[in-house]
Amino acid sequence: MSGKNIYDLIIIGAGPAGMTAAIYAARQKINFLILGRTIGGQVSWSTEVENYPGILKIQGSELVKNFQEHLKGYGVGIKQEEVVSVDKQGKVFVVKTKKNVYETKSVIIASGKSPRKLNVPGENELQGKGVSYCATCDAPLYKDKVIAVIGGANSGLEAALFLSKYAIKIYLLEVLPKLGGDVYLQEKVLKNKKIQVMTGVKIKEIKGENFVTGLKYEKEEKETELKIDGVFVEVGMITKADFTDVKKNKWGEIMIFKNLKTFEHNLTSVDGIFAAGDATNIAFKQIIVAAGEGAKAALAVFNYLNQWE
Amino acid sequence: MSGKNIYDLIIIGAGPAGMTAAIYAARQKINFLILGRTIGGQVSWSTEVENYPGILKIQGSELVKNFQEHLKGYGVGIKQEEVVSVDKQGKVFVVKTKKNVYETKSVIIASGKSPRKLNVPGENELQGKGVSYCATCDAPLYKDKVIAVIGGANSGLEAALFLSKYAIKIYLLEVLPKLGGDVYLQEKVLKNKKIQVMTGVKIKEIKGENFVTGLKYEKEEKETELKIDGVFVEVGMITKADFTDVKKNKWGEIMIFKNLKTFEHNLTSVDGIFAAGDATNIAFKQIIVAAGEGAKAALAVFNYLNQWE
Repeated sequence: MSGKNIYDLIIIGAGPAGMTAAIYAARQKINFLILGRTIGGQVSWSTEVENYPGILKIQGSELVKNFQEHLKGYGVGIKQEEVVSVDKQGKVFVVKTKKNVYETKSVIIASGKSPRKLNVPGENELQGKGVSYCATCDAPLYKDKVIAVIGGANSGLEAALFLSKYAIKIYLLEVLPKLGGDVYLQEKVLKNKKIQVMTGVKIKEIKGENFVTGLKYEKEEKETELKIDGVFVEVGMITKADFTDVKKNKWGEIMIFKNLKTFEHNLTSVDGIFAAGDATNIAFKQIIVAAGEGAKAALAVFNYLNQWE
Repeated sequence: MSGKNIYDLIIIGAGPAGMTAAIYAARQKINFLILGRTIGGQVSWSTEVENYPGILKIQGSELVKNFQEHLKGYGVGIKQEEVVSVDKQGKVFVVKTKKNVYETKSVIIASGKSPRKLNVPGENELQGKGVSYCATCDAPLYKDKVIAVIGGANSGLEAALFLSKYAIKIYLLEVLPKLGGDVYLQEKVLKNKKIQVMTGVKIKEIKGENFVTGLKYEKEEKETELKIDGVFVEVGMITKADFTDVKKNKWGEIMIFKNLKTFEHNLTSVDGIFAAGDATNIAFKQIIVAAGEGAKAALAVFNYLNQWE
């Protein structure tokens, strides 16, 4: 061993999963470090959060502050360092960031996801001002509004169906010549009178001053503008876990397992690496789900460390 | 079909799992009912909750109120009815309570657990006043205190080890002539200088006026009193799910599964019955974990109902 301090645990990611894992690790008095590029992860740029049970309604940024306060209560600070690699050397993991090299007995990967962007003018400027990447989060804000959903695969279809319970009219725009995703979802969308499907459509610009007012698209080389109150971008997510070679599914999500005999949850293909939250193959990417998974991972690590020699 | 109203979903249980499922079901505009014997479940009689991320510190009863307020915000009320049976008739489930009979397309079982009690004098009277059934929840309240843990199997061993990070002295009392549970945990306990193991000990009474002050036990027909500041009862939990015959493990916990192809979580052995929280074989019985699982179950039901004809 090098003479260096070996941590019991390094948590990678400071969203709801990573921060909850940290709260639990602190309570278990585990000697750990939490590294995160964006404190709060996706929550930090969420508008109103209304589906975190026990907190009626809160701005994303406020909820992140609450989590941070919670961590501070246990004397835990988040190191804003980006992880570039995680390698196992014997029984110890070497975690490299852009600034430092750490050694640890175990790792929780909770590095989350970023929504894939359209990369059109107006998108960044109007994010949180009518441009949303989370229908489940923001749907109730668009009651009786006219909105566009961009993306005709499963997540776009589901978003459109879900939003149809609130919005008065939904344009579902897909760049390909026809819808993708599950047939039963396509059928439901096509039957839904509130949803107007438009395929072969290329988004050019999102318009608005303080809030989204319109959307410019091109179809058959002709540009058109739609008047809308909001845009839900559902063109996929990018998992941020290229620093590790644990087993992933075809979308780059870390596969997690449970072992019913040892009561361990959130295991990955590498012994000693655990994972939680949106970076994993859990189907539902929700704050409360990520928090629950983070707690499970930290408690599993506690059991793991009890057996570590 | 009978002419009755068929619900899309009935949620059984109104603890963190059931109430979170209800919040999510309400947001998905699912036509559902939530039935619960004790609103808040185990949380309702928790003392201070310090491990629900985003809420620094809160009384169990207050957290339950917050969850209820959250539900009321969506116009959802909890029916305090005890379920006696769930039977599948064709594609529809018949849920019988002591008062009513309901029909539903799907069920989420989130009926939780009750800790097994010692059934000795003083136990009920001092619950929440030094008598605790959750070490993970209440350990930090016993910093530098002298406490007793009752139960020498895994949960008792784990509780004693965890509590040793806070308490100054721990008596671990087991009624059998020797400790049970995993050997590595036993070894850790025996090596821990703060923990004094006493076997073959039968608890007779928990003493205290406003708060626990002592514990009376019998060993080899001799009664002795220990001076202590708190008692953690770790003699097992009882799963409350005898109203259903879905597949359970040897502890009576409902086995839950995931299907990676259909992105479904919290499935049980019966198609259309989902389960979440402490009533399931999830290893960690925590409020935040139960809430996360409840959300997963409700979102899985949403997908299930999309395919229901």
